[in-house]
Amino acid sequence: MTRTLIRGGLVITAAEETSADVLVEDGRIAALAAHGSACAESWTAERTIDATGKYVVPGGVDAHTHFDLPFGGTASSDTFATGTRAAAWGGTTTVVDFAVQQRGGALREGLDTWHAKAEGQCAIDYAFHMILSDVNEATLKEMDHLVSEGCTSFKLFMAYPGVFYSDDGQILRAMQRAAANGGLIMMHAENGIAIDVLVEQALAAGRTDPRYHGEVRRALLEAEATHRAIALARVAGSPLYVVHVSAQEAVAELARARAMDLPVFGETCPQYLFLSSDRLAEPGFEGAKYVCSTPLRPEEHQAALWRALRTDDLQVVSTDHCPFCFSGQKELGRGDFSKIPNGLPGVEHRMDLLHQAVVEGRITRRRWIELACAAPARMFGLAPRKGTLAPGADADVVVYDPHARQTLSAATHHMNVDYSVYEGKQITGRVETVLSRGEVVLDRGTFTGRAGHGRYLPRATCQYVM
Amino acid sequence: MTRTLIRGGLVITAAEETSADVLVEDGRIAALAAHGSACAESWTAERTIDATGKYVVPGGVDAHTHFDLPFGGTASSDTFATGTRAAAWGGTTTVVDFAVQQRGGALREGLDTWHAKAEGQCAIDYAFHMILSDVNEATLKEMDHLVSEGCTSFKLFMAYPGVFYSDDGQILRAMQRAAANGGLIMMHAENGIAIDVLVEQALAAGRTDPRYHGEVRRALLEAEATHRAIALARVAGSPLYVVHVSAQEAVAELARARAMDLPVFGETCPQYLFLSSDRLAEPGFEGAKYVCSTPLRPEEHQAALWRALRTDDLQVVSTDHCPFCFSGQKELGRGDFSKIPNGLPGVEHRMDLLHQAVVEGRITRRRWIELACAAPARMFGLAPRKGTLAPGADADVVVYDPHARQTLSAATHHMNVDYSVYEGKQITGRVETVLSRGEVVLDRGTFTGRAGHGRYLPRATCQYVM
Amino acid sequence: MTRTLIRGGLVITAAEETSADVLVEDGRIAALAAHGSACAESWTAERTIDATGKYVVPGGVDAHTHFDLPFGGTASSDTFATGTRAAAWGGTTTVVDFAVQQRGGALREGLDTWHAKAEGQCAIDYAFHMILSDVNEATLKEMDHLVSEGCTSFKLFMAYPGVFYSDDGQILRAMQRAAANGGLIMMHAENGIAIDVLVEQALAAGRTDPRYHGEVRRALLEAEATHRAIALARVAGSPLYVVHVSAQEAVAELARARAMDLPVFGETCPQYLFLSSDRLAEPGFEGAKYVCSTPLRPEEHQAALWRALRTDDLQVVSTDHCPFCFSGQKELGRGDFSKIPNGLPGVEHRMDLLHQAVVEGRITRRRWIELACAAPARMFGLAPRKGTLAPGADADVVVYDPHARQTLSAATHHMNVDYSVYEGKQITGRVETVLSRGEVVLDRGTFTGRAGHGRYLPRATCQYVM
Amino acid sequence: MTRTLIRGGLVITAAEETSADVLVEDGRIAALAAHGSACAESWTAERTIDATGKYVVPGGVDAHTHFDLPFGGTASSDTFATGTRAAAWGGTTTVVDFAVQQRGGALREGLDTWHAKAEGQCAIDYAFHMILSDVNEATLKEMDHLVSEGCTSFKLFMAYPGVFYSDDGQILRAMQRAAANGGLIMMHAENGIAIDVLVEQALAAGRTDPRYHGEVRRALLEAEATHRAIALARVAGSPLYVVHVSAQEAVAELARARAMDLPVFGETCPQYLFLSSDRLAEPGFEGAKYVCSTPLRPEEHQAALWRALRTDDLQVVSTDHCPFCFSGQKELGRGDFSKIPNGLPGVEHRMDLLHQAVVEGRITRRRWIELACAAPARMFGLAPRKGTLAPGADADVVVYDPHARQTLSAATHHMNVDYSVYEGKQITGRVETVLSRGEVVLDRGTFTGRAGHGRYLPRATCQYVM
Repeated sequence: MTRTLIRGGLVITAAEETSADVLVEDGRIAALAAHGSACAESWTAERTIDATGKYVVPGGVDAHTHFDLPFGGTASSDTFATGTRAAAWGGTTTVVDFAVQQRGGALREGLDTWHAKAEGQCAIDYAFHMILSDVNEATLKEMDHLVSEGCTSFKLFMAYPGVFYSDDGQILRAMQRAAANGGLIMMHAENGIAIDVLVEQALAAGRTDPRYHGEVRRALLEAEATHRAIALARVAGSPLYVVHVSAQEAVAELARARAMDLPVFGETCPQYLFLSSDRLAEPGFEGAKYVCSTPLRPEEHQAALWRALRTDDLQVVSTDHCPFCFSGQKELGRGDFSKIPNGLPGVEHRMDLLHQAVVEGRITRRRWIELACAAPARMFGLAPRKGTLAPGADADVVVYDPHARQTLSAATHHMNVDYSVYEGKQITGRVETVLSRGEVVLDRGTFTGRAGHGRYLPRATCQYVM
Repeated sequence: MTRTLIRGGLVITAAEETSADVLVEDGRIAALAAHGSACAESWTAERTIDATGKYVVPGGVDAHTHFDLPFGGTASSDTFATGTRAAAWGGTTTVVDFAVQQRGGALREGLDTWHAKAEGQCAIDYAFHMILSDVNEATLKEMDHLVSEGCTSFKLFMAYPGVFYSDDGQILRAMQRAAANGGLIMMHAENGIAIDVLVEQALAAGRTDPRYHGEVRRALLEAEATHRAIALARVAGSPLYVVHVSAQEAVAELARARAMDLPVFGETCPQYLFLSSDRLAEPGFEGAKYVCSTPLRPEEHQAALWRALRTDDLQVVSTDHCPFCFSGQKELGRGDFSKIPNGLPGVEHRMDLLHQAVVEGRITRRRWIELACAAPARMFGLAPRKGTLAPGADADVVVYDPHARQTLSAATHHMNVDYSVYEGKQITGRVETVLSRGEVVLDRGTFTGRAGHGRYLPRATCQYVM
Repeated sequence: MTRTLIRGGLVITAAEETSADVLVEDGRIAALAAHGSACAESWTAERTIDATGKYVVPGGVDAHTHFDLPFGGTASSDTFATGTRAAAWGGTTTVVDFAVQQRGGALREGLDTWHAKAEGQCAIDYAFHMILSDVNEATLKEMDHLVSEGCTSFKLFMAYPGVFYSDDGQILRAMQRAAANGGLIMMHAENGIAIDVLVEQALAAGRTDPRYHGEVRRALLEAEATHRAIALARVAGSPLYVVHVSAQEAVAELARARAMDLPVFGETCPQYLFLSSDRLAEPGFEGAKYVCSTPLRPEEHQAALWRALRTDDLQVVSTDHCPFCFSGQKELGRGDFSKIPNGLPGVEHRMDLLHQAVVEGRITRRRWIELACAAPARMFGLAPRKGTLAPGADADVVVYDPHARQTLSAATHHMNVDYSVYEGKQITGRVETVLSRGEVVLDRGTFTGRAGHGRYLPRATCQYVM
Repeated sequence: MTRTLIRGGLVITAAEETSADVLVEDGRIAALAAHGSACAESWTAERTIDATGKYVVPGGVDAHTHFDLPFGGTASSDTFATGTRAAAWGGTTTVVDFAVQQRGGALREGLDTWHAKAEGQCAIDYAFHMILSDVNEATLKEMDHLVSEGCTSFKLFMAYPGVFYSDDGQILRAMQRAAANGGLIMMHAENGIAIDVLVEQALAAGRTDPRYHGEVRRALLEAEATHRAIALARVAGSPLYVVHVSAQEAVAELARARAMDLPVFGETCPQYLFLSSDRLAEPGFEGAKYVCSTPLRPEEHQAALWRALRTDDLQVVSTDHCPFCFSGQKELGRGDFSKIPNGLPGVEHRMDLLHQAVVEGRITRRRWIELACAAPARMFGLAPRKGTLAPGADADVVVYDPHARQTLSAATHHMNVDYSVYEGKQITGRVETVLSRGEVVLDRGTFTGRAGHGRYLPRATCQYVM
């Protein structure tokens, strides 16, 4: 038996702040004891980490990453190896990535492909959602199998006609199946059919710069799709999780649903909280760096997102990490914004950016941990192993220095991408030490992890649904 | 010059109730004078109608009829001849029917076909909306021509995939065009893609009776489509008119839009106000008589519709008259509710049923006239010729006896259909005499009109849009 | 019999726009006939007014004036003589002024006092509301009498503790009585108890300038009182009319009530539509000119008021005309904003300012007339005599030149007050000729009326309540 | 050092469910360890409680009790001795009772009086809120002192004019003071001024039975006061806690406030969740047993309350325990419902009744603990000592048998009152063993506690306000 002891820190979970020592046995949290108690004093361990003056928090759970994702003739620039390492640097110890069904192919094939990409590569634990590109009788049946083997969430797209798009009938059928098998439907909620008309019109009118990406993807069309997805989920009797919510009008739809006590959930991402559509209008082709969908919105939307994070109308902050290098990848869209690969890098900075929100008084420390760790774990069936610090949980632990200062930059980040959307941004707070199942993977600024340490996590069904 | 004088009645318009004599010259209202005034006393005329103790109201404007409409291998059972005559019996002096574009065909062809059906057949004046079955570059251009020649409203369907259905891109393009040319988009708002899944599942499960027609066409899916149509209209910057609203949740969407001061309008029909989905569940195949779309709803929806008529969240009551005989037509759907031709007879009874609502205290007399005459005229560009009694207006006048009692029945109605959805219903109030452009077409219970009297009415654009 | 003929204008009512000639017999509208019709051509009259190119509209009904009102040790500066003459200059032919019950006195006394003030003084017709300063068993009984003799509306104050203030129990009792006798409760909705705390605190902190008048009378406290008045009216089962609504949050409360189909009504005034709280902060003591309660609000509230006028969440525009000269009256509050007499001059400019809104595209011409004439007449039981141009109505008629331009100024206005809140404001449109019961009181810029022409109008109960 | 070990239970907190052993050292939770871990296995203790198959939960925190409260000429029938013992029987280990300021007296006197009542009497820990009966300059200053010594919440009444009632100005001043000193204003939100009118009218009309207590205290008047309290808190910039919410319309006001991210909180009580106004109408004078204010509501309100407990629009369930014996106390109101002492017994059954809601699927186990323990502790500044099971917290622990069955009855309960409002109600679940600061006060059905064990708890300010 190996024992590690983390002494003297302030243990913060979604629910409590406790001056406690944490005892790790064999990769799991064995116990928490009040600092200075006789019990705590009696503990000994092979390794003792001094967390005095630091926070001791659960490792982050990033429920939305896209490593090595083929998109528009290229692929996202982080592999599972580079992506999970960057995640660890940032205090994230679990990622849930998206396996993709090829149109016409089986879910099984897609899932196997993604298992092959990840196997032996990951620095931290990982799980998979499944992207349904093609809802039909066969794939509906496969959903049941996937749920039973721990792939319990399925993403559908109301955007991207001809690629990932499902029509309302397919969505309804998938939701009905999920209502029966316990799966959780995740929705990219934008009216892609209408947006594609606006894209075509913009291009025809010579509006080809990145800024038009933001203009054609109207906030109203995100809100519309969000409302529609909620309506279809009500008809199906299924829960719903809306990904990367960015428009205040979409937040309002989620709030309406929550007020009715419907099992409807939403996530937003740091880019929507900290960046605005002004970035898309940066001169030259710089705006391309900020092209993602849903798009960045005008700054006034941010207040609604922060408010929803406080009122629990949004429950999760994920990254939608999907990096493409500016050079050679983002550049594919010069002269036609619709050809810019959609996606931003972000997996490394989520914990820090949300801590910055704590520093700025937007959220409490406990809410920081809930949004970044506990809620995504519970949402996707990983509680109580992940997302909290409780006896019996996996010893995924971050020692966080709340007073350190750092400056985000492509020059120093660990993601495999040649720019940072937060270049130059100053942050108070920094990850100091990271344990993954009891193993130290980051030790006061030195990466000590390894590809292959991370294990696949079969998941239970959504733990917010009673 | 021919002069007709209507003496002694209570003239009721959407705005006023006046004890006035009405002077008709050459088919138009020449003047209204206070009853007993020197001016009125001085009037003489070829024909004097005594309206003492009666209401004198504008002829009804029914903005939603389907005469001789091919549907599901059959056609609605009223021709323009029989349908407009029945309308006249019921105090309606203007109908706006729907010309249909064939998929792949031109709007022009559709409109010409309907002109041919109506020409020389009508007892009262008529106009046309255009059903867009196929939105494309050519038909978008044709919309401009039609607006300029007085066909200023265009109906789209979010239901009936494969038949009339337009996708959201087509809807958006048509709305954009209407925003530019002044046309009004009318919407059948039901999510037909989702409904067809439920239809298929119901039939597969052996739920083939008419009652399932009501169950699969979920109120939530009417509300969803209503919300979506509003969102698309907002993106396009166009006004919107939602036809045959029946679900309280759809009314709530319209109310939200109206509260935002959006140019969004809605109509309901007497069947939704007076009949409930219990009818669809009548034993035998009787329920088929009540099959229409949107479907009849559970009784509790009626209160929301009446309230919306009072609060002006719904502006118009039309009939959606689309009759099919029970024998030989409705029967096509025995064993498969989805094959029952959709539609009910109603053109004859709208004025009476709404007067009954006056009697029951649900609406005021002025609101009766607004809903049935003034608002549809203004909505569809027929004011000030139609829908009111004002100097210069067409002399479409109804002398209405508010105290007469009648019983509705297929045995006595004048529509060409073998049943009545209001069989046995008792009504207080009855049309006594009807003038169409000054000509008496109904004279105290005797039909004195003729096919061919009615003229085609080119229309201005919607007069509610500033 | 005297006959006057108004030829060639565009007759505009709340409901219609008609090219019609108007025949006046003995002070009443005898008839309207289509311009150019044989009937119209046959008309002759003693006096013919050429309205070619002009609007012919009903005389305005200003349902909220305070002539000769004692307030804070002074009295409003317009008498019934000067005030009604100024009204006539501005196209207003009916005013409803407020008689005041003295605390401890009888309603009867108050009403008699006001009758004495007005008798023989008025240039136009007038009626009275009653201000209830003291709700008790005796005055509750008196309400019944007043209703039966045509004083059918009663104003209560949630503001001004110790002066006009009624507590919630008194309000409830008065509403219950009104529910029984058909009276309409008018409410000054501001939480005066809370406001007085803020006033005291402001003065104690040395915040004595006029601008603080606006700051302490919080929008939220107007909204609160509005909500409370609605709740009490619901408990009592009575209708409610909220006077001088200025805060968008109060509008929202009215909109919520209207959406529930409650008999709740609201009025705003031109000062809230055209002026903002910036005026209160004008340098020196200039801000005192703009002190009224409810106060002027920051500019962003105006959009909500205009929207509510369009959506019919507000039904009436009155002036709350209550002028105090700057010199000697407003100056009473130098060094203590709470001592500035509350009120603004405005009775002369309401028709023009609302026409300006027509010119600016904020409202339609018909809505102009509805807000300024038809709705206040119907609200306060004066229809169909006042507020419209229909056979049988009083011949209160305004010939309005929509193209004339004028500049508002104290130098040219006819109200007895030494400043104008609209000094220098340019208006398109101007009253040309005004008839009061058939008599010309303003003739193309010459005042031809006289004190004593105006008659007292006993009123029916509110005609919006079914 | 004394050590107690609770082995083998399922530890449930507001946030987690963990199979953990709990180690108590010297009255505090020293540590939690995963059941079966080496760490847990190594533990020894003087006393070991076997919790296998049981829940181990924090002791309940009842934030609303009235022991020995003078009311209407009598006093509530439980003393601190009997009341806290009954609480302990029911698994509640902390109560916050209300000290009362006498009108004209100082807060200090009131608090001292209540300290004297409680001192040496309590079986469990206790704290005090302060009832402000008389807001004035002196008592406003005293608020600061009370906050600094741990009495951090102040109750005001919008009901009971002449007794506890504060007017809106007093409320505003108290809220302003609380905004400055960190105090939390608790509000009895009913419009007592209006209610007293209805009471008087009901009695005058001979409606004297207990059922009229429920009828006159209208739901709308609870909602109105709730809305008003929120508005005043917004003006003051203070947080607000609304006590004993019972009307769905009041819940809607709280939900509106929460959606705006305002620091507005609400509590309901088991009687509103499980009993309806039908009880008030029980024959004879039986209804008097159910007289409390706010009153029991018609059954349909319950669904709204349960929903709000799930959506966190209500945060706390307290009892408002205020018992009066039927015999001799409730009977004071025979022939005049307004003389019935207001209040119900309930302190003993809150944990059980909410567990019953878990059994019935209304709330989760974690939410049970949040509503009954964690949220009231955090709301009233008792976290992290009370309301959770975490290292360092007071060892207030309940071993709860989720499968035991019991029947509630006056024959078996421990409250000093001669009837039960839940007489005969069957419950699944029962408190087995209770520790208060590590001391066993209930041991498998035997009360082992003692008067005087309970200590006074000075409190921090509300921990929900960032």
